[in-house]
Amino acid sequence: MLIGQVVNTNASTMAKMLVATGMDVRETAVIADDRDAILNTLTRCLKASDAVLITGGLGPTKDDVTKKVLCEFFGSKLVENQEALENVKRIFAARGYELTPINRQQAWVPECCTMINNILGTAPCMWFEREGKVVVSMPGVPFEMENLMTTEIIKRLQKHFATGRIINKNILVQGIGESFLSDLIEQWELALPKTIRLAYLPQAGMVKLRLTERISESQPSAINDQLPGLYALAGQYIVGEDCETLPELAHKLMTSRGCTLSTAESCTGGTIASRLTAFSGASAYFKGGIVAYSNEVKENILGVRSETLASYGAVSEETVHEMVEGVRQHLKTDYAIATTGIAGPTGGTPDKPVGTVWIAVAGPNGIETRLKKFGDDRLRTVDRTCNEAFSMLIKLLYKNINQ
Amino acid sequence: MLIGQVVNTNASTMAKMLVATGMDVRETAVIADDRDAILNTLTRCLKASDAVLITGGLGPTKDDVTKKVLCEFFGSKLVENQEALENVKRIFAARGYELTPINRQQAWVPECCTMINNILGTAPCMWFEREGKVVVSMPGVPFEMENLMTTEIIKRLQKHFATGRIINKNILVQGIGESFLSDLIEQWELALPKTIRLAYLPQAGMVKLRLTERISESQPSAINDQLPGLYALAGQYIVGEDCETLPELAHKLMTSRGCTLSTAESCTGGTIASRLTAFSGASAYFKGGIVAYSNEVKENILGVRSETLASYGAVSEETVHEMVEGVRQHLKTDYAIATTGIAGPTGGTPDKPVGTVWIAVAGPNGIETRLKKFGDDRLRTVDRTCNEAFSMLIKLLYKNINQ
Repeated sequence: MLIGQVVNTNASTMAKMLVATGMDVRETAVIADDRDAILNTLTRCLKASDAVLITGGLGPTKDDVTKKVLCEFFGSKLVENQEALENVKRIFAARGYELTPINRQQAWVPECCTMINNILGTAPCMWFEREGKVVVSMPGVPFEMENLMTTEIIKRLQKHFATGRIINKNILVQGIGESFLSDLIEQWELALPKTIRLAYLPQAGMVKLRLTERISESQPSAINDQLPGLYALAGQYIVGEDCETLPELAHKLMTSRGCTLSTAESCTGGTIASRLTAFSGASAYFKGGIVAYSNEVKENILGVRSETLASYGAVSEETVHEMVEGVRQHLKTDYAIATTGIAGPTGGTPDKPVGTVWIAVAGPNGIETRLKKFGDDRLRTVDRTCNEAFSMLIKLLYKNINQ
Repeated sequence: MLIGQVVNTNASTMAKMLVATGMDVRETAVIADDRDAILNTLTRCLKASDAVLITGGLGPTKDDVTKKVLCEFFGSKLVENQEALENVKRIFAARGYELTPINRQQAWVPECCTMINNILGTAPCMWFEREGKVVVSMPGVPFEMENLMTTEIIKRLQKHFATGRIINKNILVQGIGESFLSDLIEQWELALPKTIRLAYLPQAGMVKLRLTERISESQPSAINDQLPGLYALAGQYIVGEDCETLPELAHKLMTSRGCTLSTAESCTGGTIASRLTAFSGASAYFKGGIVAYSNEVKENILGVRSETLASYGAVSEETVHEMVEGVRQHLKTDYAIATTGIAGPTGGTPDKPVGTVWIAVAGPNGIETRLKKFGDDRLRTVDRTCNEAFSMLIKLLYKNINQ
């Protein structure tokens, strides 16, 4: 991570889980696999906080040093743990691999710790206590860490420290920039109760507002009382609540409506389909999609007319209209999304600069199209196009249910 | 980030850039938008390092405090900066928005800093010096920060501190687990020169080996001399070099071969297409894809026979074979990839448990299919299926060029 080849998703995964149970996260840090760095950071963080969670550095390879440093920190020594050894043996047997001496070392843990079995991998989890404070060492593999957090660590932390609760409320806002939104809702924000904090979390082409409330176990939440005031000022820009992202909201709405969806993607190259199918249960409404990256596919599979492509070009309202109509008819779905644009960084013209995107959504009552200009950054243009398309679909779903 | 709703990609982006220019990254930390936390961390990090780079906390909203704290730290005061104000005005004018007093505050910076214009956004970048050490404050929006790093900050840091060079060499390994790989290449690893470090960077279903060498400007690199030894031991598992990921390698090979590709995705839901089209220039070889999430799409668009689906099921060798053949013929490409599987967490049967995946690649000389069992985690199964498919395509491309 310190050389930038891996993004640290573990920190945010853990923070989310801890915050949801009422614990404050003071700091997250990435440090080198190095004795001094680990010792210094552990000492400093354990002074400033009640608990320190560590991930990684437990692999069998030579660049992993965490266990040795933990022994030094706690004045303990490595011993073979029977339960951990059985777990390593079980995993190797299941995969049909032979247990080598280097793998067997995975079952060695500091004598002073409580070993917590990691059933998904060979590196054990370790729980240390000193003067009421806690240090937990977990493997760095994200799904192993997540499973340990969910099944063991959160519960043990809640039990060890008596924690209150934190209530979070997300509101997705689209079609207004962060600073304009801030101006618009300033009076409401200033009048929020002291127990509630507001954060602006911008995503590609939208802003997630997050209200966070810290209360005791018995105290009732005051968040819902604040919502009418927000809607009175910014209601026209609010797309939904209680979701992290627009694809999640689109997925929930499509699931609850019992209707079907298809996609015809050019510039987004399958990303809209990929983001929807990331959710379990997407097959209930998502029949499929066409990634129409070439004009041939637009013509032969989606039925876009060659005259349309010749007269107006692949990036045009006429083409996106025929794409969304074609995929909806061809895949026989209630709703459809289509995108076509110049993601860049090359391919722009004076008329249609890089970042020019046409988006269409189709439903039982017709087709809506929209032109956007998203600028030079390829992945950002894909991101913003996806969010714009999800927002258009969501609004169409709301409209159709209200009719 | 401390409540886990945003993943910190800025840290790895900056680390990658700094490391490439020969600077060591000691630590990355995420802290609260809070006066004491910022002051303490700044003090500590500036003691331990020569430079501290800060992102975020510069927005116009009330939860951003960085500029005030920087004034306090450097004993300075906020003043309006003319160049920054012109930039804010230009951006608002281009968007057709009115400049509000809250937006105008974006142009205020500590008097003691060097303001560096952020042409992509309204929050200016600030460069501070004290006793030879450097503090840089940048906006948190990733593409604004990246542009500032690329155009200004890296060059200024290189000039301010005389830096050496770091050489990185990536080797992608697939088809062997991390610990087995470590056993296999142990002797080679132990014999590496002291100037070269090896890291094991596991990704879904593969391992990236990274050799890092730190040398002075004039010293020649010794990395290439080490490669024959590695190939002698693990050559059969090495898929490629000088890429970060398998999709990047597949993209480079497809681009250089001048042939075409299509995809037929069921369980991966468009993710293979999305990962390829993330690279600029993908349109040169990628004609398009079918996301065949339902059996109807498999039959009607890909031409999978209904008897095949009825007799063998959607997740079968027969189906994936007809999918890959269908998409290759239909989209008239040289190569094709197909996937079908049970991503889960539901939908498994005793015969075909969750995680069962069939993958096929097709080329001018025929079709190869592969069965994998990837376990219960939905997104991980999608990830591993993509990497397995890319690896199969890469090997097929190597084979066809060598024939």
